[in-house]
Amino acid sequence: MTNVMLSASNILNGFKLAGREFHPDSTVIDVDGIKIGDGSLVIMAGPCAVESRAQLLETAALIQASGAQFLRGGAFKPRTSPYSFQGLKHKGLQYLAEAREATGLKIITEVTEADLVDDVLACTDILQIGARNMQNFHLLQAVGRSDKPVMLKRGMSATIDEWLYAAEYILNEGNSRVILCERGIRTFEDYTRNTLDLSAVAAVKQLSHLPVIVDPSHSTGRWELVAAMSKASIAAGADGLIIEVHPDPMKARCDGPQSLNPDNYRNLMSDLLKLSAFIRTELH
Amino acid sequence: MTNVMLSASNILNGFKLAGREFHPDSTVIDVDGIKIGDGSLVIMAGPCAVESRAQLLETAALIQASGAQFLRGGAFKPRTSPYSFQGLKHKGLQYLAEAREATGLKIITEVTEADLVDDVLACTDILQIGARNMQNFHLLQAVGRSDKPVMLKRGMSATIDEWLYAAEYILNEGNSRVILCERGIRTFEDYTRNTLDLSAVAAVKQLSHLPVIVDPSHSTGRWELVAAMSKASIAAGADGLIIEVHPDPMKARCDGPQSLNPDNYRNLMSDLLKLSAFIRTELH
Amino acid sequence: MTNVMLSASNILNGFKLAGREFHPDSTVIDVDGIKIGDGSLVIMAGPCAVESRAQLLETAALIQASGAQFLRGGAFKPRTSPYSFQGLKHKGLQYLAEAREATGLKIITEVTEADLVDDVLACTDILQIGARNMQNFHLLQAVGRSDKPVMLKRGMSATIDEWLYAAEYILNEGNSRVILCERGIRTFEDYTRNTLDLSAVAAVKQLSHLPVIVDPSHSTGRWELVAAMSKASIAAGADGLIIEVHPDPMKARCDGPQSLNPDNYRNLMSDLLKLSAFIRTELH
Amino acid sequence: MTNVMLSASNILNGFKLAGREFHPDSTVIDVDGIKIGDGSLVIMAGPCAVESRAQLLETAALIQASGAQFLRGGAFKPRTSPYSFQGLKHKGLQYLAEAREATGLKIITEVTEADLVDDVLACTDILQIGARNMQNFHLLQAVGRSDKPVMLKRGMSATIDEWLYAAEYILNEGNSRVILCERGIRTFEDYTRNTLDLSAVAAVKQLSHLPVIVDPSHSTGRWELVAAMSKASIAAGADGLIIEVHPDPMKARCDGPQSLNPDNYRNLMSDLLKLSAFIRTELH
Repeated sequence: MTNVMLSASNILNGFKLAGREFHPDSTVIDVDGIKIGDGSLVIMAGPCAVESRAQLLETAALIQASGAQFLRGGAFKPRTSPYSFQGLKHKGLQYLAEAREATGLKIITEVTEADLVDDVLACTDILQIGARNMQNFHLLQAVGRSDKPVMLKRGMSATIDEWLYAAEYILNEGNSRVILCERGIRTFEDYTRNTLDLSAVAAVKQLSHLPVIVDPSHSTGRWELVAAMSKASIAAGADGLIIEVHPDPMKARCDGPQSLNPDNYRNLMSDLLKLSAFIRTELH
Repeated sequence: MTNVMLSASNILNGFKLAGREFHPDSTVIDVDGIKIGDGSLVIMAGPCAVESRAQLLETAALIQASGAQFLRGGAFKPRTSPYSFQGLKHKGLQYLAEAREATGLKIITEVTEADLVDDVLACTDILQIGARNMQNFHLLQAVGRSDKPVMLKRGMSATIDEWLYAAEYILNEGNSRVILCERGIRTFEDYTRNTLDLSAVAAVKQLSHLPVIVDPSHSTGRWELVAAMSKASIAAGADGLIIEVHPDPMKARCDGPQSLNPDNYRNLMSDLLKLSAFIRTELH
Repeated sequence: MTNVMLSASNILNGFKLAGREFHPDSTVIDVDGIKIGDGSLVIMAGPCAVESRAQLLETAALIQASGAQFLRGGAFKPRTSPYSFQGLKHKGLQYLAEAREATGLKIITEVTEADLVDDVLACTDILQIGARNMQNFHLLQAVGRSDKPVMLKRGMSATIDEWLYAAEYILNEGNSRVILCERGIRTFEDYTRNTLDLSAVAAVKQLSHLPVIVDPSHSTGRWELVAAMSKASIAAGADGLIIEVHPDPMKARCDGPQSLNPDNYRNLMSDLLKLSAFIRTELH
Repeated sequence: MTNVMLSASNILNGFKLAGREFHPDSTVIDVDGIKIGDGSLVIMAGPCAVESRAQLLETAALIQASGAQFLRGGAFKPRTSPYSFQGLKHKGLQYLAEAREATGLKIITEVTEADLVDDVLACTDILQIGARNMQNFHLLQAVGRSDKPVMLKRGMSATIDEWLYAAEYILNEGNSRVILCERGIRTFEDYTRNTLDLSAVAAVKQLSHLPVIVDPSHSTGRWELVAAMSKASIAAGADGLIIEVHPDPMKARCDGPQSLNPDNYRNLMSDLLKLSAFIRTELH
């Protein structure tokens, strides 16, 4: 399709590092032996926020037993209101480190400002950049100078090229281990919290060599849609998922309505592993 | 989740016929022996527009050989500009009837005004209501009085409840065979023609008992994303797909960039049948 | 600005009748002596729906005393739900005709289907096409064959070029008296019912020779924003306003929250007449 | 309107400092004798970016002669691509200080990271927070601890309540001199760069006591729409405007297409001063 090609190449005008033209093979990121982007399924699961030592360790045990590779959990929580719970901060990081020690799970957690990068690095295996910070270029450059992988969430109203350019900011500082994360875009539809844009996942897998993770929890804002959207993400070509799980969603300090309870999470994991293996081995 | 339930029930406030509360079992629509909504996969494929007798018959043979059940093709084409090709109209209907005769495929084609319902009914098995007409209530009522199934495309900026209320207009006239079709919503993202909203598919399967079809061609506007989005749709719970295929997309009179060529279509069909069977039999 | 010119000319690619290139002077529409588009201010005011003879005649008297030229009021009301009040229909048309007789006001009312055009024509001075029907091409062609002016509301998710192409459908049938109406677009912002796009008003005044009216009531959905948006519309270059007024908004059968009460309406009218005269005479 | 009141009060649930309930009188911000929010018109004008000493001083002289109170100009420019011109940085700040000295104009310029707040403070009278940083809470808190006024641009996809909560972050640190700036939201309409949301200006003037400035240049992205949108902003109730002016827009290093040339700017200023005085003295 001549015009499609033109358009794809327009969008990449200016990329040096994120585009597939410059790096035809898909990037595989190795996190101490866990591979992201090699065709296997990566699952990052855990609570929205680290709320207490007990909550985190209980969830971590559940996550580990399920076969997931990463524990997620926010220690620094950017919140719309200054009066909302902002996370346990350094105490939360400490619990994450403890959960890693206890379970062998890898950790992914968000860093919200450049001055905290070193502290967060000490307790995590992947640094997460949240949607609100996708164009916080100072922070992107700071994590671009770190030696750990970075998962970059798409901004709520970021176009695909703005998202890839944000990745370019990190890559351009020398950190080649960037993972993209689609988490829904803001549209008029308000039945869901955001609109999960799975076409963008398929598009980015063609335009870029970087791995792509999907967040079905924040995008939908409804736990009852998470299973369907997780399967759809895998079928769309995502390299993994980041899923909110809480031992007791009704008591969660944030985002309870989008968190799976342990039973639903275990059933989903079983399906996802089977589906991923089937797609990898049986389809074109 | 108490608040999720509340919200789901708010959205259904006022539905009498489209909501699952009033009809807990999924509706299965029988089109002369073809079942839509029973868990099997329904494929509707064909060109955007009926362009000529030869083009339609060639495509129909391809569609039939692939294992799809329905031939799609527009005879009446609503177009942004009055100077664009508007379809072959009654001549197009005649070719569709001929293709049905030749292949045994069922037909789905769009009806754009109430006065044409009878003419279209004579040549089709399913009446399609296009996105621009989702709230053309006069037309909805007219097809609601017909005795054939109606596939109702979601409007480009319709919320889920507006979509279900549009279905309610048809159901309320006595036609209980309504199929919903998600075809992308209009957002800021312009890499794709529209943003395919697969969360809405999962949501509508919970809120309503009506079957849901996905259009990966119009939603993405790019043939190279159609395969990924077709698989994702099935994984999200869609009952079927409506896919644009053209014997020679470069020569299509409309929507060439989103049409699969025959080879890509055949490969996709093979994957979709396997994936659907796997999901139906192996997952929760 | 070379690139701006290019872009403006791209958007007009394909227009024959709606574009200013083909008709450099602004079109002035004469409705039995009332001029629309000549620099003076046109006000269309009245209730969302004709609810009763008494309600309409009371409002008409108020509108006439205020100095407005047109009475608005819906007899056929397209509604999201089939179970909502759909208007008084032919009875409503009759009351509009009676109000015209009683006050000398001109009438503007919506026509929702081609088969009703003749009936509506008998009771109105301007035919209104609602936002949901902006791309109901059959209806556009029908009003394009009538001999009365047509006000075409912008669709909720219509781009500027789609809107002008819809006008082209009417013009192309021979009716040159088309008035555009901006009524808000659908966005993520939900504090207002829609987002009033006044930049589109300024853009359309440059791209097209057709007059433009603004609807501050439907766009905001909040009566307390109507005064500010009315003044802003005039300052942006609109040729007039269509405003919802109700003798008792709390008792309105639809859209009460966006209707002005008589006192607020009278104060606003006084401001608008002064502002329009000032802008016409004192500014560049 | 009972339901409107309810809704307005819902949106303010949680505000302590930004809401009008807690501070009924409009806040007037005094910047060394220049008042913002007292009903007079404040104009901030200048180039998108400080490009050179000569360019800035030439523009500053023009701005001063026009009767504007503030010179705008970016020294630190957040850009989508890491390879685009990022501003003259500290050199740019120095030129701004020099222009202030030469003309007596007040300065407004953007600060993009917490570590730069002190450097920027030394050369500016108002700190600007850009749209991309509206929810960079670390930066908001840093400027909240400074002793100079802060102009907070609305994020491209921020709702009104998210915008007011971002202001709350600054206010909550003790800096009560916060100015809001509407600069367009991201929607499907792409004729304009963004969609200027003037209803939000009127809404925020009701919900909050803080002054509101409008940016007609970034919102439209087209210089030929700036005059109309500037007038509309004043009529909508804005306390001032921030306008891009460049001595030679064709040669601008960024955002040339949205910059006024000197002649157009002077004509506009003359109109705006007259319009503002008229509205203040003659209307309700």
